[in-house]
Amino acid sequence: MDIEKELLDLKTKVNEMPGQENKLSMIVFSGELDKHLAAMIIATGAAAMGMKVVMFFTFWGSAALRDPKKKVGGKDFMSKMFGFMLPKGRNKTKLSKMNMAGMGTAMLKGLMKKKNVASMDQLFEMAGMLGVEINICEMSMDLMGFKREEIIDYPHLDFCGVATFLANAKESAVQLFI
Amino acid sequence: MDIEKELLDLKTKVNEMPGQENKLSMIVFSGELDKHLAAMIIATGAAAMGMKVVMFFTFWGSAALRDPKKKVGGKDFMSKMFGFMLPKGRNKTKLSKMNMAGMGTAMLKGLMKKKNVASMDQLFEMAGMLGVEINICEMSMDLMGFKREEIIDYPHLDFCGVATFLANAKESAVQLFI
Amino acid sequence: MDIEKELLDLKTKVNEMPGQENKLSMIVFSGELDKHLAAMIIATGAAAMGMKVVMFFTFWGSAALRDPKKKVGGKDFMSKMFGFMLPKGRNKTKLSKMNMAGMGTAMLKGLMKKKNVASMDQLFEMAGMLGVEINICEMSMDLMGFKREEIIDYPHLDFCGVATFLANAKESAVQLFI
Repeated sequence: MDIEKELLDLKTKVNEMPGQENKLSMIVFSGELDKHLAAMIIATGAAAMGMKVVMFFTFWGSAALRDPKKKVGGKDFMSKMFGFMLPKGRNKTKLSKMNMAGMGTAMLKGLMKKKNVASMDQLFEMAGMLGVEINICEMSMDLMGFKREEIIDYPHLDFCGVATFLANAKESAVQLFI
Repeated sequence: MDIEKELLDLKTKVNEMPGQENKLSMIVFSGELDKHLAAMIIATGAAAMGMKVVMFFTFWGSAALRDPKKKVGGKDFMSKMFGFMLPKGRNKTKLSKMNMAGMGTAMLKGLMKKKNVASMDQLFEMAGMLGVEINICEMSMDLMGFKREEIIDYPHLDFCGVATFLANAKESAVQLFI
Repeated sequence: MDIEKELLDLKTKVNEMPGQENKLSMIVFSGELDKHLAAMIIATGAAAMGMKVVMFFTFWGSAALRDPKKKVGGKDFMSKMFGFMLPKGRNKTKLSKMNMAGMGTAMLKGLMKKKNVASMDQLFEMAGMLGVEINICEMSMDLMGFKREEIIDYPHLDFCGVATFLANAKESAVQLFI
């Protein structure tokens, strides 16, 4: 047995194995408050434990990354419609269940305050400080007619496609679709 | 080349690689019958195949782990409201689609019986026998005002936070968010 | 130190490690257009990047794999009911949000066409060409009363159970539940 060769082969194999990084890749597809809370709590928790975290916001998820203070013009009719009907930013999303015309959502937000659970604003601030990367799906932006200028300011923000998500995911120890 | 050193380095690297255990980590976030059925069927299936299984019930998922026969008092108004509005236990959850005022849910339960698909009670019993671990999110319990005394009896039950889920997930070959 | 033995032990360990294949395993549980679009875009994207892709359609997901042109008879009452109420095929699914009696779904389809996003039919054709495997959950077929003869023609189609999904998932670098 040629030990040196065997060892080098094994080393190459190990280095090329997918899923070997201490990293979390998350697709945030949903657009509801409860799911976004879960996503942000998992993301900040993982980053605090020393994991590298990449979140890929797509479809309904991308609507919540709009900044309600930023206005953009020049949209076509369909884009205006989508823009109008989808929750404008992370503080306008609703619960997926028991929204009850906003009452359930308000109740939950009240409870979160009372029980000292971090708000969405605080979670985004923590995520920024902890280096959580936020990627936004370009196809979703295009489809829903969102423009880059109306997206939140965030220190680690990027626009990309599903290939980037997959490249991250296959290196990651943990992947979730939320 | 120092073969001995190289070999030891590679061994250390392999031992520290995440995702190397034959283990399934699942977040059960949803609170509906159909999703809980899927989660329990996957969990018991994996355990029967020899995988270690850890389920982390959070948010709406935690409501279904209450035992309707256990009554607890001393709750504040908000906790009573949440406790009242959420499905009390695994046999009270509804379908996420086609519930049709309970008719769809009843239809599915009838079909499950007819086709010899295990009921939720049977799935929990199997899970217990197969050693499936059930963790309940402490933050969700606190937020929704659930008390430990109203949770089901289950042989492998624990209360913990998102850090425990992540520690399990990154060692696991498979992770799912349901 | 017996280097040869140590090396062989390590090699065995590496070869038996789960999650080592450049492979994507997906459970498609949901039955809505938006989630199916996401699943198919991820699947074809991964296959185009050289990943092996296995999709496991279960529960509501399986309804969308029916071919509306194929008619089967001899169903009992319950099966007819389910068959009638669930969307018949991939072009009949609706959005999970903002369906608005079909208007939202029509809007999205219009936008997809305008923005040159592949339609469901094109995505299935691409998936077939790229070798994406589609597995359909036998238990779901049985529960909802679907017959094999009413399922779409697809080059890499198979019927199986949750054990097959798990066997695939634990070898896969990426797993998602959609």
